[in-house]
Amino acid sequence: MRLTKIPLLLILLASLGLAEEGMFPMSELNRLDLRQAGFELSAGSIFNPDSLSLTGAIINIGGCTGSFISPQGLILTNHHCAFSAIQRASSAEHDYLHDGFYAATHATEFPARGFTVRITEDYVDVSRQLLDAVAAAGDFAARAKAKEQKSKELIAAAEKENPGKRVELAEMFPGKSYVLFIYTYLTDVRLVYAPPHGIGNFGGEEDNWVWPRHTGDFSLMRAYVAPDGSPAEYAPENVPYSPRIYLPIAAKGAREGDLAFILGYPGRTYRHTTSHYLEYESGLRMPWIVEWYGHQIETMEEMSKADRAVALKLASPIKGLANTWKNYQGKLLGVERLNLVERKRHEEVRLAEFIAADTARQSRSTVLPEIAAYYADISSRFESEKLMDALLRSSALLSTAYTLYQSSVEMAKPDLERDSPFMERNLTRTRERLPLSLADFYLPRERLFLGELIEKMQALPAGQQPAAIARLPKGRKLGKFLDEAFASSRLKEAAWALQLFGKPSAELLKTGDPFIKLAAGLYPDFQIQREARRAGSARLEQLMADYVDIKQAADGHDFIPDANGTLRFTYGHIRGYAPRDAVYYAPFTTLDGIIEKNRGEEPFDAPRALLDACARSVAGPYINPDLGQVPVNILYDMDTTGGNSGSPVLNGRGELIGLNFDRAFEATINDYAWSSSYSRSIGVDVRYILWVLEQVSRAHTLLQELGLQ
Amino acid sequence: MRLTKIPLLLILLASLGLAEEGMFPMSELNRLDLRQAGFELSAGSIFNPDSLSLTGAIINIGGCTGSFISPQGLILTNHHCAFSAIQRASSAEHDYLHDGFYAATHATEFPARGFTVRITEDYVDVSRQLLDAVAAAGDFAARAKAKEQKSKELIAAAEKENPGKRVELAEMFPGKSYVLFIYTYLTDVRLVYAPPHGIGNFGGEEDNWVWPRHTGDFSLMRAYVAPDGSPAEYAPENVPYSPRIYLPIAAKGAREGDLAFILGYPGRTYRHTTSHYLEYESGLRMPWIVEWYGHQIETMEEMSKADRAVALKLASPIKGLANTWKNYQGKLLGVERLNLVERKRHEEVRLAEFIAADTARQSRSTVLPEIAAYYADISSRFESEKLMDALLRSSALLSTAYTLYQSSVEMAKPDLERDSPFMERNLTRTRERLPLSLADFYLPRERLFLGELIEKMQALPAGQQPAAIARLPKGRKLGKFLDEAFASSRLKEAAWALQLFGKPSAELLKTGDPFIKLAAGLYPDFQIQREARRAGSARLEQLMADYVDIKQAADGHDFIPDANGTLRFTYGHIRGYAPRDAVYYAPFTTLDGIIEKNRGEEPFDAPRALLDACARSVAGPYINPDLGQVPVNILYDMDTTGGNSGSPVLNGRGELIGLNFDRAFEATINDYAWSSSYSRSIGVDVRYILWVLEQVSRAHTLLQELGLQ
Repeated sequence: MRLTKIPLLLILLASLGLAEEGMFPMSELNRLDLRQAGFELSAGSIFNPDSLSLTGAIINIGGCTGSFISPQGLILTNHHCAFSAIQRASSAEHDYLHDGFYAATHATEFPARGFTVRITEDYVDVSRQLLDAVAAAGDFAARAKAKEQKSKELIAAAEKENPGKRVELAEMFPGKSYVLFIYTYLTDVRLVYAPPHGIGNFGGEEDNWVWPRHTGDFSLMRAYVAPDGSPAEYAPENVPYSPRIYLPIAAKGAREGDLAFILGYPGRTYRHTTSHYLEYESGLRMPWIVEWYGHQIETMEEMSKADRAVALKLASPIKGLANTWKNYQGKLLGVERLNLVERKRHEEVRLAEFIAADTARQSRSTVLPEIAAYYADISSRFESEKLMDALLRSSALLSTAYTLYQSSVEMAKPDLERDSPFMERNLTRTRERLPLSLADFYLPRERLFLGELIEKMQALPAGQQPAAIARLPKGRKLGKFLDEAFASSRLKEAAWALQLFGKPSAELLKTGDPFIKLAAGLYPDFQIQREARRAGSARLEQLMADYVDIKQAADGHDFIPDANGTLRFTYGHIRGYAPRDAVYYAPFTTLDGIIEKNRGEEPFDAPRALLDACARSVAGPYINPDLGQVPVNILYDMDTTGGNSGSPVLNGRGELIGLNFDRAFEATINDYAWSSSYSRSIGVDVRYILWVLEQVSRAHTLLQELGLQ
Repeated sequence: MRLTKIPLLLILLASLGLAEEGMFPMSELNRLDLRQAGFELSAGSIFNPDSLSLTGAIINIGGCTGSFISPQGLILTNHHCAFSAIQRASSAEHDYLHDGFYAATHATEFPARGFTVRITEDYVDVSRQLLDAVAAAGDFAARAKAKEQKSKELIAAAEKENPGKRVELAEMFPGKSYVLFIYTYLTDVRLVYAPPHGIGNFGGEEDNWVWPRHTGDFSLMRAYVAPDGSPAEYAPENVPYSPRIYLPIAAKGAREGDLAFILGYPGRTYRHTTSHYLEYESGLRMPWIVEWYGHQIETMEEMSKADRAVALKLASPIKGLANTWKNYQGKLLGVERLNLVERKRHEEVRLAEFIAADTARQSRSTVLPEIAAYYADISSRFESEKLMDALLRSSALLSTAYTLYQSSVEMAKPDLERDSPFMERNLTRTRERLPLSLADFYLPRERLFLGELIEKMQALPAGQQPAAIARLPKGRKLGKFLDEAFASSRLKEAAWALQLFGKPSAELLKTGDPFIKLAAGLYPDFQIQREARRAGSARLEQLMADYVDIKQAADGHDFIPDANGTLRFTYGHIRGYAPRDAVYYAPFTTLDGIIEKNRGEEPFDAPRALLDACARSVAGPYINPDLGQVPVNILYDMDTTGGNSGSPVLNGRGELIGLNFDRAFEATINDYAWSSSYSRSIGVDVRYILWVLEQVSRAHTLLQELGLQ
């Protein structure tokens, strides 16, 4: 009887609207009444820079979130976050991507180059210092420069005060508030466990952003440090990192209606924006991306059909594009469904009335018209700007050439005047990324997309084409030029490219490499574009600061800042929702649902070992008693966005009940607006993780490390 | 708050599995414990040939069910059942199909030619007489003939006993039990009301066979009789028919969990069949139809794009094909999902063991192997047989020619020896259908599909081609032949075709009409095919009778006979279901759902008047108090199939709460198997019907007639 799966009480609870919008910075924790909300934890036990607190276990890893779950630095994050590491560990002989990966000993763990672990140690508000420096400068271009300079100085000073730490500046409200975050960085990260692809990516793109979901989107990694405990690059003699704290596992998992919270590093939200921004996004930018990404995905899928090696190579870029592609479609639907542009416009009419109602506020009466003018301006140059952005991304050879050319210009400057990636403190990472991006080089793809973009640029009015593009041959001759360029360029050899890093421009050009020549030709136009954008941003920043001020005054309360990749807290409940009239989604899926979806072919190709385990019905302690089954994924009404991937989902006692990895389709709109009816995020139930480790992968050493066997 | 729409108590109720499989014939009513099931009605008040009973209001109308709902013969049935009448009433000037139709006075009602109303008066079991006659005959061909003869005699005798009635023979269990049904037929039927297309067909093919649903699939017609009260063909002086009984309307509608029942004329089910039949259906016949219908639909949709007149002409044939096309896809999914073939095979293994376990039963040991042999045989000839079936259906000209040629052969025989359509008692209807089928003639479509089918037949091995097809020119010459045939044939003129009806063959051939020549050429092969099928059916009938006997013995109880177009009773509850893991469908949809689905274009193009009415929020008495909204469609677990379209849905007191019109996608499998989890049918909530009449169409005279204003 399926229907008994919906516990009655919880539907009642679900209807009460207990969720609260908010990705709270640590500085806001003390303002929340956690006990009233049902927590058995205090704000201090969640974040406290001076003593043990949960956030010591919460890391940023490769743009995702992860958490320490053992005293030996074992990290739980998503399969899709470790994807490129699993992909790089795989070869035609050992297809770990398909079969899964399990290192039963430390020695067999696989170095995940390019992955770093970032732990938040503390933060300091530096708004005053930064804004004073900006205010002292002249026009917007000067202000942008002043801001950059001051940031670098503040960071340098803070890093001196905190030896061994990295410091980064976060903009909480553009033009209003700025915080320095003090981080520990660990740079030796290794892959420990990945489930088979048919578990970790069960449902693939078809189920991405979809509930009900049945994906085992988890993996295990481990952080290593030098034998003396200090952060170090990969070395065989390194030892597992001992985190100050690690997350305990909730033996019984969660039940519908349970209180839950998430700590993580949500990337970007855009809630404190105006109708003009949303119009630009939904009318121009997102439709453009949907079309261009859709074309690229289709083409790469076609290329992958014939050859498993090509498919392995293109899997990661396809996955990346497809994720955004579907997300934007969900957002476009949401913008329309929630009528967001119109709602923002109404808000702005009210805001204009509020401004006009008091003479003291009337100096702000130009804010909204100026924001409108800013978006009208960038909209008019939209196509050419977008093509320039896409150009470098479309080709690893061209982007490598461009990075090399930048390095030649930047490294000739004093350290503090350089672009951030070329400052001494970032050089290693910038250098390290070069061969990684070249590793994904696949000629037929690059040749095609680069050619298409150049042709699109050549079709623009003359004034909108970068000079270097206008100079290129056209039509068939362009094809010939590109064929020859790809044939002759030595940038395909990572070692050759690396040794050019930071060399003077003249030396670079002497190589005669066609992509270096093209990059050098593009450089002036790209610099002009960049400066113009910087000035524009500075102008917008000022306007948005005024806008937020006046809006907070009108609303009578302060806002929670938009997500910006810094540590945030969000809480809510395990809770279903009604996506459409007469349809209700329950907040747990089960093993039965895997069997139901399984087709024996991609993307619903559950591995034999999982099907056998289901048939054995050895659920062990991993059953959800309300369902009488092993739960697979869980749904909750917390406020998440990209970057929250891999975040631990914790109960009111701070124990791990799940692993966040996605949002429901209706919740892609989170980035612009929160909706109590629709904003639902998706996690892997911790019981499914343990069941897979035990019953499918027989990963006994890991279960022992987790204290479970 | 959406979620409050799911009343808690009812989910509990829904989980108890109160539904019962069964489309009970009237003869079974007395065996049901209706009071125990919660009815306030007795079996006798539902069916009683000797006094007033509900079934007096339940009619068969054009293959659908309908019911009398006023003392003046007002009939409630589905929009899709009245579709061809609405279509024929429409023209380029008066697009009633699109705008809806409302006759405020009797004088403006539109004659729905070709529609007849059939009321069940009584039934008599004649199994003994018929089976004795069959048993006395020789081989299977002779048995088939004997059965046909005896049926005709029994019918003729019964019609003599029941003057003014029509009598029809129904096969309840093939080869086992036969019942004569005594019917009143009314032949003057008129269209009274149809909602706009954007209500009556809201959701179109996209939502067909889908829940949640928001279709106002209802229409109103009226039966007329001669001034003396006797059945009569259309005549302006005819008067509204006074039914013996009509259905009262349940003022408050239904609530989740309510007991409900349906009386209607379900068409065909195939539950008492073997694995071989299901294999043939799911492996050959349904996939073939899905492909061929899919091709026809796509082609006709293409043809409809340019011209609204063509679109109007093709709307009905497209709708007919699309309905089956989607239904079969649902069935194919269901056969696979419920693993039906395998389950039947298991049953048959057990049955074979049961047979082998007792020497008295061992004479039946050949039954299953012989059924297997029968299906192996028809499977081997599948392609050519299927093409022959499709050939006549693809062309109104060819099928008209074939009917004329048949009439010339048959009408030369004594009445009782003729094929049923050419017996005196059926001649009027057969003749009447000729111009109706010609009215749908659309040259480009017929020319294309007929050509394609002939080419497919010409590609078959020589032995499998009808001689007349083998004789036709091939390739381009065939194209030329068909062009000329369509250009020259006078069969497009209905009057010319009608005057040939029943004329001697020689006279027909003398016309030189190319389609008459082709039909005459095809006739011998089609006759051979028909005779072979008849003998095969007689053989299968015998086998299936044995199979049902032995299976009833093995199961230890009698079966309810499969649906066969005769009057049936089914009961259950207003109840949702879980179509997939973590998804629950509630059993009511609402006006909000219409707004949610409406796109302002086909197939979700709600008319302005409906949107305005929603905005006015004048729900009047039509609210479902659990939802606080006007309900649109309802879902229940009763056992229905095609033919139940237009059936009234009644509460335990026999009052109208809805109008059945479809099944959920998962329930298309009903035809082969009943599933308590998945078998759900869909009706229009009576409150939505009344709300549309009142708030959208302002059909006050009708509401008055219903006693509601």
